[in-house]
Amino acid sequence: METKKTRIESDLIGSREIPEEALYGVQTLRGIENFPISQFKVCQYPLFIKGLAVTKKGAAIANHQLGLLPDDISKAIIQACDELREGKHHEHFPVDMIQGGAGTTTNMNANEVIANRALEILGHKRGQYEFCSPNDHVNRSQSTNDAYPTAIHLGLYATHLKLVTHLKDLIASLDKKAQEFKSVVKMGRTQLQDAVPMTLGRTFHGFANILTHEIENLNFAAKEFLTVNMGSTAIGTGICSEPGYSEKCVKALSEITGWEIKLADDLVGATSDTSCMVGYSQAMKRVSVKINKICDDLRLLSSGPRCGLGEINLPAMQPGSSIMPGKVNPVIAEVANQVAYKVIGNDVCVTMCGQAAQMELNAMEPVMAQCCFESADLLMNGFDTLRIRCIDGITANEEHCKKQVLNSIGIITALNPIIGYKNSTKIAKEAASTGKGVYELVLEHDILDKEDLDTILKPENMIKPVKFDIKPKRHL
Amino acid sequence: METKKTRIESDLIGSREIPEEALYGVQTLRGIENFPISQFKVCQYPLFIKGLAVTKKGAAIANHQLGLLPDDISKAIIQACDELREGKHHEHFPVDMIQGGAGTTTNMNANEVIANRALEILGHKRGQYEFCSPNDHVNRSQSTNDAYPTAIHLGLYATHLKLVTHLKDLIASLDKKAQEFKSVVKMGRTQLQDAVPMTLGRTFHGFANILTHEIENLNFAAKEFLTVNMGSTAIGTGICSEPGYSEKCVKALSEITGWEIKLADDLVGATSDTSCMVGYSQAMKRVSVKINKICDDLRLLSSGPRCGLGEINLPAMQPGSSIMPGKVNPVIAEVANQVAYKVIGNDVCVTMCGQAAQMELNAMEPVMAQCCFESADLLMNGFDTLRIRCIDGITANEEHCKKQVLNSIGIITALNPIIGYKNSTKIAKEAASTGKGVYELVLEHDILDKEDLDTILKPENMIKPVKFDIKPKRHL
Amino acid sequence: METKKTRIESDLIGSREIPEEALYGVQTLRGIENFPISQFKVCQYPLFIKGLAVTKKGAAIANHQLGLLPDDISKAIIQACDELREGKHHEHFPVDMIQGGAGTTTNMNANEVIANRALEILGHKRGQYEFCSPNDHVNRSQSTNDAYPTAIHLGLYATHLKLVTHLKDLIASLDKKAQEFKSVVKMGRTQLQDAVPMTLGRTFHGFANILTHEIENLNFAAKEFLTVNMGSTAIGTGICSEPGYSEKCVKALSEITGWEIKLADDLVGATSDTSCMVGYSQAMKRVSVKINKICDDLRLLSSGPRCGLGEINLPAMQPGSSIMPGKVNPVIAEVANQVAYKVIGNDVCVTMCGQAAQMELNAMEPVMAQCCFESADLLMNGFDTLRIRCIDGITANEEHCKKQVLNSIGIITALNPIIGYKNSTKIAKEAASTGKGVYELVLEHDILDKEDLDTILKPENMIKPVKFDIKPKRHL
Amino acid sequence: METKKTRIESDLIGSREIPEEALYGVQTLRGIENFPISQFKVCQYPLFIKGLAVTKKGAAIANHQLGLLPDDISKAIIQACDELREGKHHEHFPVDMIQGGAGTTTNMNANEVIANRALEILGHKRGQYEFCSPNDHVNRSQSTNDAYPTAIHLGLYATHLKLVTHLKDLIASLDKKAQEFKSVVKMGRTQLQDAVPMTLGRTFHGFANILTHEIENLNFAAKEFLTVNMGSTAIGTGICSEPGYSEKCVKALSEITGWEIKLADDLVGATSDTSCMVGYSQAMKRVSVKINKICDDLRLLSSGPRCGLGEINLPAMQPGSSIMPGKVNPVIAEVANQVAYKVIGNDVCVTMCGQAAQMELNAMEPVMAQCCFESADLLMNGFDTLRIRCIDGITANEEHCKKQVLNSIGIITALNPIIGYKNSTKIAKEAASTGKGVYELVLEHDILDKEDLDTILKPENMIKPVKFDIKPKRHL
Repeated sequence: METKKTRIESDLIGSREIPEEALYGVQTLRGIENFPISQFKVCQYPLFIKGLAVTKKGAAIANHQLGLLPDDISKAIIQACDELREGKHHEHFPVDMIQGGAGTTTNMNANEVIANRALEILGHKRGQYEFCSPNDHVNRSQSTNDAYPTAIHLGLYATHLKLVTHLKDLIASLDKKAQEFKSVVKMGRTQLQDAVPMTLGRTFHGFANILTHEIENLNFAAKEFLTVNMGSTAIGTGICSEPGYSEKCVKALSEITGWEIKLADDLVGATSDTSCMVGYSQAMKRVSVKINKICDDLRLLSSGPRCGLGEINLPAMQPGSSIMPGKVNPVIAEVANQVAYKVIGNDVCVTMCGQAAQMELNAMEPVMAQCCFESADLLMNGFDTLRIRCIDGITANEEHCKKQVLNSIGIITALNPIIGYKNSTKIAKEAASTGKGVYELVLEHDILDKEDLDTILKPENMIKPVKFDIKPKRHL
Repeated sequence: METKKTRIESDLIGSREIPEEALYGVQTLRGIENFPISQFKVCQYPLFIKGLAVTKKGAAIANHQLGLLPDDISKAIIQACDELREGKHHEHFPVDMIQGGAGTTTNMNANEVIANRALEILGHKRGQYEFCSPNDHVNRSQSTNDAYPTAIHLGLYATHLKLVTHLKDLIASLDKKAQEFKSVVKMGRTQLQDAVPMTLGRTFHGFANILTHEIENLNFAAKEFLTVNMGSTAIGTGICSEPGYSEKCVKALSEITGWEIKLADDLVGATSDTSCMVGYSQAMKRVSVKINKICDDLRLLSSGPRCGLGEINLPAMQPGSSIMPGKVNPVIAEVANQVAYKVIGNDVCVTMCGQAAQMELNAMEPVMAQCCFESADLLMNGFDTLRIRCIDGITANEEHCKKQVLNSIGIITALNPIIGYKNSTKIAKEAASTGKGVYELVLEHDILDKEDLDTILKPENMIKPVKFDIKPKRHL
Repeated sequence: METKKTRIESDLIGSREIPEEALYGVQTLRGIENFPISQFKVCQYPLFIKGLAVTKKGAAIANHQLGLLPDDISKAIIQACDELREGKHHEHFPVDMIQGGAGTTTNMNANEVIANRALEILGHKRGQYEFCSPNDHVNRSQSTNDAYPTAIHLGLYATHLKLVTHLKDLIASLDKKAQEFKSVVKMGRTQLQDAVPMTLGRTFHGFANILTHEIENLNFAAKEFLTVNMGSTAIGTGICSEPGYSEKCVKALSEITGWEIKLADDLVGATSDTSCMVGYSQAMKRVSVKINKICDDLRLLSSGPRCGLGEINLPAMQPGSSIMPGKVNPVIAEVANQVAYKVIGNDVCVTMCGQAAQMELNAMEPVMAQCCFESADLLMNGFDTLRIRCIDGITANEEHCKKQVLNSIGIITALNPIIGYKNSTKIAKEAASTGKGVYELVLEHDILDKEDLDTILKPENMIKPVKFDIKPKRHL
Repeated sequence: METKKTRIESDLIGSREIPEEALYGVQTLRGIENFPISQFKVCQYPLFIKGLAVTKKGAAIANHQLGLLPDDISKAIIQACDELREGKHHEHFPVDMIQGGAGTTTNMNANEVIANRALEILGHKRGQYEFCSPNDHVNRSQSTNDAYPTAIHLGLYATHLKLVTHLKDLIASLDKKAQEFKSVVKMGRTQLQDAVPMTLGRTFHGFANILTHEIENLNFAAKEFLTVNMGSTAIGTGICSEPGYSEKCVKALSEITGWEIKLADDLVGATSDTSCMVGYSQAMKRVSVKINKICDDLRLLSSGPRCGLGEINLPAMQPGSSIMPGKVNPVIAEVANQVAYKVIGNDVCVTMCGQAAQMELNAMEPVMAQCCFESADLLMNGFDTLRIRCIDGITANEEHCKKQVLNSIGIITALNPIIGYKNSTKIAKEAASTGKGVYELVLEHDILDKEDLDTILKPENMIKPVKFDIKPKRHL
């Protein structure tokens, strides 16, 4: 942005020099200066910029239909918006995502970029706002307080659609492993204590299944993004807009996106309400809770190689240690855990901001949006990394798993319905204190015939509901 | 519990004396001793105990249908469960809600109380478990790991139904005020700065509206409670249960409750998954975010009486100060805020516990349940208190509100579409620096005719979208 | 409280009947009615009531010294306070800990109880406030806004002293185990993967050590409770108090408690500032983080009995399962985890409330105090339960631990400084792929003499820094 | 990084091409590929890289002193480290801050950059690790598990020193305003209700004062960063290090930095313990709580211009609205609020990760470090922005403030000690219901002489403790 050529622009506060090549104008410049806060710049969030472009285009269409924008100007604005939707000019959104003013800076950044681009299209020079003004034309019938949240909604809904795709890929990968491991019998554990047998396939099927439920949950939360408050203008009363504008605008937004967009049923209530972000953030939080559970389990199950559970092997992605030769660590599961923790932290930020709404607006919207976009990006990266660099390459230690089951005391549970909880407990205690096997002890005490015992303890009989017609020979 | 008479009961760990009048048994006693943790005892959560009773009844019906429980025992168990559902014997649940063992203590407490009560019904003495055993009969085909979460689900679903009723009452109260205040014109504010006019009715309608949306959100989250994992037994594989048990049990639960209860589609996944509690807790968190916003606004709008906004009056519930005579404070709004904060804190506990699931179980379920029941109780109390002791008695300072609007600079916004953003800005700046009124200045600068200006600035024209056919006489 | 006899009391709002036997008065009655919110009543927090009593006594002494209270009244007030300090009359504090009014209800509850008790001492009847008034005498020179936070400070400081005692007991228990297990060699693990050998004693010493550091941290945080704002009265300006009152009052508080109590250096700043609670809550949060780590480790190390790490045994406190015979679970560690999660959740509530201060007061103090007292109680109960019912009874599986070390690949690390990271890596890889032992392979490849190898791999040489004068015979 | 020239490097996993101009090596490359997670790259955190450089230099000095590194290699390593400390080569740290492996990637990134730079200094080529190896030389006597946390500690301590400087500047700015506004009398408010008079100077002094206390709190928390675990190597036992190494290394670190660095008193405990980050994060959280309170107050006090409290004016930094002309918003206070919320969210992430330590290590350290550095950066930016663009330019509306005081009912409190709480309450109620002034009513009821009343109600007498020798003429 080091340039000699500049143009002069002015606003309520005064006049400033703007770099000639900048599509943005004086209010964006003030935003740059006022908010040197974080590493998160609007230009890093393309789906948000596209959300802004769709919003501004929808408004232009509605304004044109109402006769509030002449043909040429509305056409130029729409073309400028379409260019943004194609990914052009994003570098002209240099402002910080975290900003005061409830998004006015970002809204004005969009208004200025679109106005200047429209001016070029119309054959004028940048800054000649008398022909197409950021406020009076691009922002016509709008306020930051409706355009900005609408753009966030649209940007986050597009992000959601992407997120679900990545999540589905992860689920498919887990399901494939469920299939691959469906015959690997292993010990199930509750409270980290040996419980009863199961298959490794069911472990992975369980992972896939609990994540699958999150899709519905995410979809439900995301649906709220499709309700917008266009036409609220400043506070939800629609001041400065004409009757019918809201409906026309929402219709235009639906047509542009192909999504079923609705107008909020109470524009005053909606304008200060950020609960769709609170809701979506907490939906991402819930996914993260499950990602944590899954990654924790992967790390537990692959613990070892010789002094841990050792049931599965995660693919070795890098040397595990700068000092311990040959060590391989579950680095991918670990990074996915950290993504999850970050998302959960972001949710607290979003929640706290959500309640900071005061009267007709919530000035904390910008950081809420930043957190939502950040969390979604982290999750998408986390899902892909976890899938490609970990899940897809997991192998099972089948023999070890089987040996553990046969050696366990937990298989006594299978005898419970036949010999009763009290007798089973006695056998279990004896096994624990003597180190003997359950199988051995049951025969030793002549509680069941060998044949019956073998039937009950067949792996395939211990991993599902089964009806046995077996009676114990005696009680202890 | 100081009594001379006792009976002896024994378990895996050894023998203990149980007070004769106790319906619970040795495992409950151990739970009392092992978990002297909090003020929250199971007996304080009647809907949870009812959830346990429904669960045990459903299991007994299914076991009976499969021929696993004889007629007399199943009948006695069912009667004992029904007594619990009627609110009887709750004092025999003295264990702490926060407990180790993933709820085994609470499950066994229920098994023991039901077994002992069934024994009485059958004509036996308490403790004669050979005739009806907590484990082999009451807990038949079950594990803590399916019965306990199912009881939590049912208890929380019942709690949810109640919660929504209380929430609806609060919404109705807000809606009544919206109607009452529909003609009170007042200044809207964004970022705490004067914005444009609105009615006080719309403020309250907005409150009612944003809460109304939470009902759908709560309902969606609560629906997950209707999915249960009965038949999972220990880890989701159904060991110790017979084929068909799950389906029969779920059918029985549906019939008992009248709710459409479903079996989880992956019992292994479901058994360690607590996401319905995570989901419901975060749904309550989102309600709390809005309660905070509403209460914050009520406190702002009623600030004063002479040095604040002073738009509304909250009913005086108690002297406001031990030192400042005549002071009346927004104490009810404040306590509702605190309820909301507590619920949000609980959500962090629930979230952290949700991810603490390890392999086939989540041992942190008990405190999750405690938090969910606690949060719901707090919200219900908060809703009622807020409604009855605050909202219902709110009055408006109509004259003051109106005076503020007319005196504001913000009404310049209404002129924006007619005279343009730039001209409006100039008037606004002059008003701010001179202290003059917008009305006065527009006439002084001869921008509009008095008649036109009056039309635009009519309160009813500033609080909704309006089409004017007015042109400015000149530009500044 | 069902009684026929009542007396009439009145306040700003109007007149009410008070049960004759109640030491509290009309404002407490309003508090009971206004805040039917939670299970947490002031009477359940004796150290808080004692804090109130000390505060009121200190104020009475200062007022008396300034000639603002006559001898007889001040003496009676002081005696009433002393009775509260001895644990008497606590049942007369029935109000909810969670209340609006920034604690006015609790402050007035104390004022009323003390005034009525003083009246009795003076030979008058309850309610004859003309002889000793809750406001003009007991609350003299005070406001809720200084007396209430001061009482919280004193109550929480006393709680802190108790908490540290319980924590020290837990540490001592861990230290004893560290001593007991100092010769048990076991495998250390990083990222759940086998790392290098250590002793089980060091594990427990580590637990004790990290908790020991928390004492200093808690003490630092608690020290802030000893700074009080007595004399602030309403907002920190000291209106209604006389010069010198603050100093006299603080001196009296120091003498009563024996603690070095200081006056806040900016009374306006201090009066709305609750950061001592924020600070102490987060100090408890940090302890909880470590309790979680320790309990998680105890559960991991005791996982098994046959399919887990199985390095230690936690004492069996209760049957582990309602279905799996003989199962014993780490129930005490689990409940301590849950305590920790609850404390962390409470910290979020405290944090959010901490920032809800508005201008000269923070109306959310009551729930902050409730959370701090609750968290401390939970931790004390958790510490004791964990110590007595878990740590004290832990035993080690020494043979198993040793076998794991000798069988591990991780011991290759010990050869690293002698044969280099690259050679060590090759041996490690070969061990992993062939299943052979490191010892065996080093000899097989003739890298070191048997004698040298034995020296390096002596357990006592692998668990501390050692200088070897050994060179490899060859490189791979 | 698009280059034709490459060199081949290999590790445990296999061989890879490295861009010739890269100072990093194969393990860094794997890290880049394995962790494409976030926007946070190590190269954006110069103080962290400097922490790594100091750590590696300290280790090199100690190794050299023990004869474990020859003169030339140690000299080259030290020079390479010094170059990093000067800010050179930071672009060669392209790995993600959020990574699996507990920081192994970052540690190896440092080892590789330093080794390659040392190779150049020694006259060798990059990649010729036989002359200076990342593992055997640069990482000598170290593990990621001691070097990485030590580097974080040093980096965060340096960050802390900077943070405090920025905080002090903010405090100085507030103190200057306290001085400037010391004679501006204004109404104090508790619970948003008019309370009693104070000066605006005391408001700002209070802001400055509560922040000043945070310096001590931050310092206390930061002091823990000066305790390091160098010599722990893998798990705290010091395997692969020689006796005396730890002490020499810590001494070297102290000399390099000029800070009093200590060795942890239990290296096993310390190696998995991240409580210094938990502690520092929560110290930043506590600062944020106060920043939120201050910014909330600034926004309240500047609310208006005509329908709010209007006591102060924040400098106008940008047009406040895209639709409401002339509107100026408290945008800087708002962005500082958002910074605070983000920091509080990060603290939850840090807390959750802090408890994820498992046995001898905490694999979640990387995201904890990221959060701590991010929070500190946000705060520093927030402090400066708030100070320069807001606090420094605040002006007071002195006349308006004074008028409010005189018009208030709250001044009745000043009469409380003279005429009693009950009489004062009556006057207050009458004022509230009639709209009359307190002054007027007191005279009307002939309670005090005009002269006495004037004395009591002199502003300078209402803002501090005062002893009056005035008796009421009569009681109501």
